[in-house]
Amino acid sequence: MIISMKLHSTPSEIEEVCQRIRDFNYKIHTIEGEERVVIAAIGVGDTTACLESLEAMPQVERAVRISAPYKFVSREFKKEKTAIRVNGCEVGGSEFVVMAGPCSVENEKQIMESAYAVAEAGAKVLRGGAFKPRTSPYDFQGMEVDGLKLLRKAKEATGLAIVTEVMSDRDVELVAEYADILQIGARNMQNFALLKRLGAAGKPVMLKRGLSSTIKELLMSAEYIVAHGNKDVMLCERGIRTFETITRNTCDIVAVPVLQELTHLPVVLDPSHATGKRNLVPALSRAAVAIGADALIVETHPCPEKAISDGAQSLHLPTFRQMMSDLVPYLELWKQSRLAETPVAV
Amino acid sequence: MIISMKLHSTPSEIEEVCQRIRDFNYKIHTIEGEERVVIAAIGVGDTTACLESLEAMPQVERAVRISAPYKFVSREFKKEKTAIRVNGCEVGGSEFVVMAGPCSVENEKQIMESAYAVAEAGAKVLRGGAFKPRTSPYDFQGMEVDGLKLLRKAKEATGLAIVTEVMSDRDVELVAEYADILQIGARNMQNFALLKRLGAAGKPVMLKRGLSSTIKELLMSAEYIVAHGNKDVMLCERGIRTFETITRNTCDIVAVPVLQELTHLPVVLDPSHATGKRNLVPALSRAAVAIGADALIVETHPCPEKAISDGAQSLHLPTFRQMMSDLVPYLELWKQSRLAETPVAV
Amino acid sequence: MIISMKLHSTPSEIEEVCQRIRDFNYKIHTIEGEERVVIAAIGVGDTTACLESLEAMPQVERAVRISAPYKFVSREFKKEKTAIRVNGCEVGGSEFVVMAGPCSVENEKQIMESAYAVAEAGAKVLRGGAFKPRTSPYDFQGMEVDGLKLLRKAKEATGLAIVTEVMSDRDVELVAEYADILQIGARNMQNFALLKRLGAAGKPVMLKRGLSSTIKELLMSAEYIVAHGNKDVMLCERGIRTFETITRNTCDIVAVPVLQELTHLPVVLDPSHATGKRNLVPALSRAAVAIGADALIVETHPCPEKAISDGAQSLHLPTFRQMMSDLVPYLELWKQSRLAETPVAV
Amino acid sequence: MIISMKLHSTPSEIEEVCQRIRDFNYKIHTIEGEERVVIAAIGVGDTTACLESLEAMPQVERAVRISAPYKFVSREFKKEKTAIRVNGCEVGGSEFVVMAGPCSVENEKQIMESAYAVAEAGAKVLRGGAFKPRTSPYDFQGMEVDGLKLLRKAKEATGLAIVTEVMSDRDVELVAEYADILQIGARNMQNFALLKRLGAAGKPVMLKRGLSSTIKELLMSAEYIVAHGNKDVMLCERGIRTFETITRNTCDIVAVPVLQELTHLPVVLDPSHATGKRNLVPALSRAAVAIGADALIVETHPCPEKAISDGAQSLHLPTFRQMMSDLVPYLELWKQSRLAETPVAV
Repeated sequence: MIISMKLHSTPSEIEEVCQRIRDFNYKIHTIEGEERVVIAAIGVGDTTACLESLEAMPQVERAVRISAPYKFVSREFKKEKTAIRVNGCEVGGSEFVVMAGPCSVENEKQIMESAYAVAEAGAKVLRGGAFKPRTSPYDFQGMEVDGLKLLRKAKEATGLAIVTEVMSDRDVELVAEYADILQIGARNMQNFALLKRLGAAGKPVMLKRGLSSTIKELLMSAEYIVAHGNKDVMLCERGIRTFETITRNTCDIVAVPVLQELTHLPVVLDPSHATGKRNLVPALSRAAVAIGADALIVETHPCPEKAISDGAQSLHLPTFRQMMSDLVPYLELWKQSRLAETPVAV
Repeated sequence: MIISMKLHSTPSEIEEVCQRIRDFNYKIHTIEGEERVVIAAIGVGDTTACLESLEAMPQVERAVRISAPYKFVSREFKKEKTAIRVNGCEVGGSEFVVMAGPCSVENEKQIMESAYAVAEAGAKVLRGGAFKPRTSPYDFQGMEVDGLKLLRKAKEATGLAIVTEVMSDRDVELVAEYADILQIGARNMQNFALLKRLGAAGKPVMLKRGLSSTIKELLMSAEYIVAHGNKDVMLCERGIRTFETITRNTCDIVAVPVLQELTHLPVVLDPSHATGKRNLVPALSRAAVAIGADALIVETHPCPEKAISDGAQSLHLPTFRQMMSDLVPYLELWKQSRLAETPVAV
Repeated sequence: MIISMKLHSTPSEIEEVCQRIRDFNYKIHTIEGEERVVIAAIGVGDTTACLESLEAMPQVERAVRISAPYKFVSREFKKEKTAIRVNGCEVGGSEFVVMAGPCSVENEKQIMESAYAVAEAGAKVLRGGAFKPRTSPYDFQGMEVDGLKLLRKAKEATGLAIVTEVMSDRDVELVAEYADILQIGARNMQNFALLKRLGAAGKPVMLKRGLSSTIKELLMSAEYIVAHGNKDVMLCERGIRTFETITRNTCDIVAVPVLQELTHLPVVLDPSHATGKRNLVPALSRAAVAIGADALIVETHPCPEKAISDGAQSLHLPTFRQMMSDLVPYLELWKQSRLAETPVAV
Repeated sequence: MIISMKLHSTPSEIEEVCQRIRDFNYKIHTIEGEERVVIAAIGVGDTTACLESLEAMPQVERAVRISAPYKFVSREFKKEKTAIRVNGCEVGGSEFVVMAGPCSVENEKQIMESAYAVAEAGAKVLRGGAFKPRTSPYDFQGMEVDGLKLLRKAKEATGLAIVTEVMSDRDVELVAEYADILQIGARNMQNFALLKRLGAAGKPVMLKRGLSSTIKELLMSAEYIVAHGNKDVMLCERGIRTFETITRNTCDIVAVPVLQELTHLPVVLDPSHATGKRNLVPALSRAAVAIGADALIVETHPCPEKAISDGAQSLHLPTFRQMMSDLVPYLELWKQSRLAETPVAV
C-alpha cells in the first residue's frame, strides 16, 4: 500500500498513521517529498481493512493498493490457461467453442428444433433459460423445472452440453442436476450469497460481467467462486452500459485480451446481448474470433419474431448456419495463433 | 406503443406488422408520413412481449412504449403519498426521519454505544449490517445472526427501530424477525428472486438504487415487491456510478423530486455512500432536507478509524450530534413546505 | 510519483527505470516489497512527461502521480476564497448572486422584458446567448453581434451585468467588449485554443464543466486560463451525462463542496441545464443554496412555449419571482453559515 | 414527431398543442388511447424548434422525433459508400488503408525515421501532431508551424500522405496547406465554430468521436462539416470513456458496422487511443479488420520510452512491421468480403 499524507501533516500525525499500519503487521518506509510525506506499507495482511482504516484518518490524503486484490484467478498464481472440460469438449483449450440456442426455453418443439439445428451447424453447447431475470414482474419469468427437463431431453437427443442460468442460491443444487454449465447473469455478478453457494456446485460456472462493472470487479466475483471451492469458472463479456443507445450495450471487446493477460480463466463473448440486434451479431462474432476469445454464446430462435424474449437479437437458424460457415477461415487463423502462442510470461 | 416502419416498407410488410399487433389484441392507427409509415397500437395487453416481437421484425425501425411499465408504485395509481409506519414513527409522513448507525455490527459495545448516541441526537432508526455484501471474499462478511441479536438488544435498550440488510431470499424470514425495515443493497436491486420473496416478508423494505440503474429501473424493482404483496416500500438514493472518482459515488439529488412526482413511495437519501467522505456528509444532508427528501440514512461510528468497514465515510458521534443540531432550521423550513403542499395533481 | 514494477523484474530492469527517473531530475527511494519493487520519485519537474515515459517501459506496472497537477487554482496555493467583482457585485463574496435570463437572445422585446423582470426579482446578472452551440447545423445559431448589442442595451436600461457565451478564440475580443462575464460552454471546456486566449481577455470567465468531465479536469481547464494570465475564473456545475434520461443531465451537487475544498475559485450552479425541466428548478435551487454554492444561473423566458431554445427548462417570469421569494429563508441561513466560516485549513 | 399528452389532458389543452403543431406547418393525426391521447405530426419543417416548443408546454408528457436529424451523411441520402481520395490512395474504397506515425512531431530525425519505417511496412498515410491538445497547460503543446514543415518534408521524402490535427478555426487554412487530411480531435467533436470552418477547408477531414459522445452526435457533427460545403469526411472510433480504467478508453468496435449501416462515410479505427497500451494494439487491429473497418490509425515511435507524449500506447517500429505482416491473412479475408458485398439496401 502507498499512503499519501495531507500537506503540512505534523510528525505526531504521521507517527499515528505509521503505528496504525504496524498494528496491521506491515513494515513501513517513510518517504519525505518536497511537499508531502508518503508512506509505503510492505507485507502480507488484511489489506482492505487496513486501507479503510487509514482512509478514515483525517491526516491521510489517499491510500492505494499496489498489488491485485484477487489471487487464485490471477496469472501470477497460475501461468497456464485453464481449460474447462464440459461434456466432452473443452472451453479454454485448443478448440474454439460455440454455444447457441434461444433466450428462453418456451416449449418442447422450440427447444428441440433449436438443439438439432445448432448441433448440426457446429455448436457444442445448447443455451436456453429456464429461470429468467426480467426487469418487469409482469414479463414471462421462465418455465423453471419444466424448462430444465426439456433441456435434458434436448441434451439426450443431440449430445449437446447445456448452459442455463441460476438466479438464487436456493436453486443452485436443482439447476446443477440438469446443467453442464451454470450461467450467472450480469445482474447477479455481485450477488455474493449466490457466488458463495456456487463454490460447492460441482459444475462449471459461466460468470457474466455486470452492466457497469469493471474488469477488476469481474475478477473479484470469480475469486469468490474459486475461493469457495469451484475452480472451473469461465468469464463472459456481454457488453457494458454506456451512453450509446443504438446498440443494447457496448461490447468491450478489448476486455478479452486484457482478461487473458490478467487471468488464466477462459473468456467467452456474447455478441447477442452485446449488440441487441441480430444483424450485428455475425460481424462481432468474427471480431471476437480474431481478437482471440475462447468461445461464443449466441442467441438463436426458430422464429425470432415469435420469441417470448430477445427476439430482436436472436438469429434465425439459417443465418446462424451461414455465420458458422463464414467463421471457418477466421477459426483457422485462430487455431494457428493458438498453436503459435509461446507459454505466457507476464 | 408507437411503431415506426423502415423507409420504403411495402404494403404487405406493413400489413404483416399490423397483423402481429392485432394478434396481441391492440387496436391500430396507421399514419402515413412524408417519408415513412408510423403505426400507433392502442389498448391493454402484454406490451413487453409485443414490443419484443415487433422489434424482431426486419421491416420495423423502432417500437416504443408510451405508457409507464409500472403501475402500483405510480402516482397515477395512488395520488396520496404513502407514509410507512415503523415502530411508532412514520417514513413519508409529516416528520422528517433520520436513520443512523454503523456500517457493520461489530460487537456489543460498538452497537450499544452507537444506539444510545444516535437516539439521543434525534435519530429514530438504528442502522447496522449483520450480513455484509463485500467486493472481496477475503473481507469481513458480517456477524450474521449474532449481529441481528445485538441489534435487537440495542432496540430494546433505546426504543429505536432497526434497519438492516438482507442479501438472499433464503434469509428473508430470519432477518424479518429482527428488523423493522429490510434493506436491499444497491447490488441486489435487480436480484429478482430476492425481490419476489420480499412480497411476503411482512415488514417494510428500503430498496436502494443500483450503482448504474435508472430511476425507471428502480421503480420497476419496487413494483416487483408491491406486485408480490408488500406495499410498504421506501426508495433510497445512495449515489450512482459516474466518471468522478473524488467522491465514492455521485449523488443524483434531483432523483428525490423526480421520484416524488412519479411515485407515492417515500424517498430516503444516503449521504454517506453517496459521497464516501465524512466531511461532505453534513452539507449533503442539508441539501437533502432542502430538496424535500423524506428521510436520511447516515453512517456513524464510535471510532471510525477502527471501523471494520466504511470508516472514511462514517461520522464521529459528536459530529453527528452537531450535524443534527445544524439541521434544525432546515427541518423547520421542510415542515412548513410539507404543510403548504397542495394535494398532488400530476 | 510512485512507480510500481512488474513482478520478477530484474535488477537491471529496475536500474533502467531509476536512471530514467534521475534523467528527469527526481530523487529516488526504492522499496522492496514481498512481491514487487516500488519506486518513489521525489522532486519537482516535468511530471507528465516523466510519467508517460515510465509507463512506456515494459517493466513498469503502473506509474501514478501523488501531487495535484494544478497549482494556481488550488487552495494550497491560495487559502482565501477568490471573490470576483462584476459590475458592482461580487461572485464568491459575502452575498449570494443570482444570474438569470433566456437561453438565447431572440429579439429586443424578449431580452428587455426578461432583463426588467429578473432585475426586479433580485438577479444581479443577465444571461442570454448571442453565439449558440447547437448539436444540429440546422438549428438557430444565435443573433451574434446583434445579440450582443441588445444585451448592452438591456444592461444600460437595468444596470444588470451581462454573462454571455463565447465559442471561438476568434471571438474573444469581440464578446469581451460587451460582456461582464465570458461564459465557456460545457462542450468547449477542453477547447484549449479558446482557453489560452481567455488568459488575455481582461474579463472574468465562467467555465462550465464538460458533459462527462471529472472535477480534476475542470480544475485543469481553469488552470489553463489562470496560467495564461486571467485569475478571475468562476466554475459552473451544470450537470453531467449519466444513464438517467428523465432529467437532461445529472446534477453532481456534491461537486460544490468538493470544489470549495480543492480550489479558492467561486462555484456557480446551473439548475436549468442540470435538470432540463422547469418544474425541478426551484427545488434544486434550494438545495444549491443549502449546500453552499456561491451563485445560481437560471434560465427564464417571457414565454417559454415560444422560446427558440431550451423552452422546457426555462422558468416563466412569475415562477422565477416566486422562486426568488421562496429562497429568502434559505439565503438567510446561507449568510449565517458564510459568516460563521472559519478560515479554511485544508 | 410523436407527441404523448399527459393523462387527463382536457380537450382544450389538446387543441392548444394541435394548434402549436399546425403553426409549424405539420399535419396532425390524433390517436385516442385507453389512457391518454397521442398526436402524430407529419410533414417537413423545423423539427427541433417544434419539439422544444412542445416540450415546454405543461400538458405534454413527451415529444419524440421519428426521423433522423441528419441528412447528407445518411445512407438514405446516398446509398453508395463514399471513397475519399487522398494522395493517390482511397479511404473507404477497395483497399484497406493504414495510417501510422508518432503522437507528436518532435524533431526532424524522429519524424523522418518514423516516415521511412511506416512507409516500408505498408502504411499509406503518416500521422503526427503539430498542434497538441493537452489536459495540462504545463505539458508540451506541439511544434506548431515548424512541425507542419517537418511533416511536409517527410511527405516529400516518402510519398506518404499527411494527417495532422487542427485545433482552432483560426488555424484551418494554415494546416490545410500542409496536410492531406485534417484531423479533428475527440475534445473538439462539438467545437461548432471549428466544424463550420472545415466546410471550406478544401481538404478531407477525419472527425474523431467525442469521449462520451453517441454515434448520433458524431453523425450530427459530420453533418455540420458536410452542410458547410465539405463532403469528404471520414469518421474515427477511438474509444469512449467508461468506468473501466485498465484501458485508457473502451473501444466501441460495434460502432464500425453500425456507422456503416447509417452512413456512407468511411470509418477509421484508432487502436492506440482506444486501449492506451501498446501490447493490446495488434489484437484490436485484427478485430478491426475482421469487423470491416475501412482504415486504421496507429501510433508508432522510434523510441516510445522517450516519446514526449503517448509513449505507452506507441508501437516500436519493429512491432509495427510485425503487426502489418500478421494482418495480411485478415486483410485477404477483408478484401474477399468487400468484393462480395451486395449493394446496400437499408
